[in-house]
Amino acid sequence: MESKENIEIHEGLSGIYIDISSICKVDGINGKLYYRGYPIQVLAERSSFEEVCYLLLYGRLPKKQELDDFSEKLKKERSITDQTKQIITSLGRKAQALDVLRTVMSSISAYDETPYSSEESKNIEKAIRIISKTATMAAAIGRIKKGEQILEPDQSLGHAENFLFMLTGKKPDKDAAKLIDVMFILHAEHSSNASTFATLVTCSTLADIYAGVTAGVAALKGPLHGGADEAALKMMIEIGQPENTEKYIEDALAGKKKIMGFGHRVYKTYDPRARILKSYLDIVKNKSTEDIKRLIDISLRAEKMMIEKLGQSHGIWPNVDFFSGPLYMYLGIEPEMFDTVFASSRTVGWCSHVIEYWKNNKLFRPLEEYQGPLDVEYVGIEERN
Amino acid sequence: MESKENIEIHEGLSGIYIDISSICKVDGINGKLYYRGYPIQVLAERSSFEEVCYLLLYGRLPKKQELDDFSEKLKKERSITDQTKQIITSLGRKAQALDVLRTVMSSISAYDETPYSSEESKNIEKAIRIISKTATMAAAIGRIKKGEQILEPDQSLGHAENFLFMLTGKKPDKDAAKLIDVMFILHAEHSSNASTFATLVTCSTLADIYAGVTAGVAALKGPLHGGADEAALKMMIEIGQPENTEKYIEDALAGKKKIMGFGHRVYKTYDPRARILKSYLDIVKNKSTEDIKRLIDISLRAEKMMIEKLGQSHGIWPNVDFFSGPLYMYLGIEPEMFDTVFASSRTVGWCSHVIEYWKNNKLFRPLEEYQGPLDVEYVGIEERN
Repeated sequence: MESKENIEIHEGLSGIYIDISSICKVDGINGKLYYRGYPIQVLAERSSFEEVCYLLLYGRLPKKQELDDFSEKLKKERSITDQTKQIITSLGRKAQALDVLRTVMSSISAYDETPYSSEESKNIEKAIRIISKTATMAAAIGRIKKGEQILEPDQSLGHAENFLFMLTGKKPDKDAAKLIDVMFILHAEHSSNASTFATLVTCSTLADIYAGVTAGVAALKGPLHGGADEAALKMMIEIGQPENTEKYIEDALAGKKKIMGFGHRVYKTYDPRARILKSYLDIVKNKSTEDIKRLIDISLRAEKMMIEKLGQSHGIWPNVDFFSGPLYMYLGIEPEMFDTVFASSRTVGWCSHVIEYWKNNKLFRPLEEYQGPLDVEYVGIEERN
Repeated sequence: MESKENIEIHEGLSGIYIDISSICKVDGINGKLYYRGYPIQVLAERSSFEEVCYLLLYGRLPKKQELDDFSEKLKKERSITDQTKQIITSLGRKAQALDVLRTVMSSISAYDETPYSSEESKNIEKAIRIISKTATMAAAIGRIKKGEQILEPDQSLGHAENFLFMLTGKKPDKDAAKLIDVMFILHAEHSSNASTFATLVTCSTLADIYAGVTAGVAALKGPLHGGADEAALKMMIEIGQPENTEKYIEDALAGKKKIMGFGHRVYKTYDPRARILKSYLDIVKNKSTEDIKRLIDISLRAEKMMIEKLGQSHGIWPNVDFFSGPLYMYLGIEPEMFDTVFASSRTVGWCSHVIEYWKNNKLFRPLEEYQGPLDVEYVGIEERN
């Protein structure tokens, strides 16, 4: 044991490296994000969610036939059992959407006779199952929350647009299909943040991949990780009219209120994902309802002011959560569903990390410094004061 | 960013301190374990599971009235909903016991209108609910696994003996009641091991305590954390006859096979919990069936030989999991249920840690070192070779 003098507490494990990884590079200084070496902008522009899944899981882009086969496998896994639907139906109106997703996510290991495997190829199959069914489960939760019937997947649609169809009941047009696909791509992976880390801690015990992603969904629940998009949107709704924006922000900053959707533990400049989402505001604005147009205007005015006040001077810039809200609303996704969309997409990152981590697994077992008495005398209950 | 030369990878976070804690001291060198400063031996001998819960949650032993009130609150939370029973019934025969427990654990946040609270007193109420219902849920899972009816709690019994009653359908005699209570005490807490750490990572996002314990159960699934008691028992059953023990161990060691229930990341001497459990072998042996007597004899012969071969020389000693199997069997607990008993008890440790950690919360967000290419050119799918 180290002597007490030498003990350093690494709060939040800030600055501590836990592994070498070839999945994702977050360059927080230059505002760049890479999946397997590919800049996120290029993937958002030219790739598809299915292709990005393949890239993250296998480490390289697929050839045509490989992508077709992979997409087919994802499609085959879209269905969920009556039992899963029953759990969603009975918990769906009572519990929070992400809690229901966590519960059914946990339940699907029941349909795998050998939930744990040490073989990478088998774990990729399990990952495909998880990625595919999560979207179906999330959409079903959204349906039940709205008091509507659970819809079957439309096998003519891609993964993300089928999710949107199962959730809203409407086939998205070309722009909406592209936007939901981009949102899935942007949320697919972000190195060792809290939910991915919870997944890795869980799987470092050699718990199966289902256990891991359940822990991932659990960690996403917290407002310091998931949920900032919903909070940012709530603020925009509170602001109400675009012309109120500047005064609202000014008052909030004067009152030291945190503006959600700004600032990031790693990015000290503009989050590249926020930049991509911002570019979609113009595209969708013309087709939006007046309510959503207002939200878009508010978001742009708030962003401008925040950058002036806190950008260069404090390194606080928009992150991926800031513009997500108005865009989700445009797509017909209700605020209470935002974090289930995040989870549906992030399953890819969680699974990719587990598969990589198991190549050189090491149980996570950090230490705590005990501060307190030792060998306290046990006094009988009648003699306690 | 640090230069690459300076980056140190902390594999498994070995030797890394994440927090100061006053809950538990594991003295791995001297083979001592303290809960809130009280030696585990004394608590096992003189305390009760209810009192240990109070001690871990509140940081001190209760007075008579406080313990009565606390025990009453635990009793009031024993019931589970028809919906929970339905999930257990439908998943129970198909899925592994711990997977079902993880699923229903996740589901119970549905019955709390405000799952997250920043108030310690409210979180203690939630912890009481979780601790109490987990035992009921685990027992119900065991009943369904055996094809038997779920039983209602017996409110005349203490927490651990009621668990045993709900699981086996028999009221335990005095010795069995004491033994199951001791097993619950010994498994209640063990500092920042993988499941507690998964709970803390999850709750560091300010996810609610239900999300945290769900991640805890998820992490317990892995054989590097939970499950070693089951594996150790399996070995004893495989050995079959006491006189085969020495040859089996010798062959296993010659074949570099890991003997489960021996060795520990922190204890480099006899695990004090194993010592306590060993002392119960004598008490129960006389009342055991011939089958269990044989298992007890095998365990004692295996322990003797392992200590001779690997104890002093290699620092590999029995841990809490080694003697648990025969004792659980004596109590009528089937091997597939062992890790659900562990989880039922460890809920106390998980909740105590969350409540402590939130006093000075810091989001866990470690780093990975990216090793791979950057700015890879995106080649259109038709041009990929």
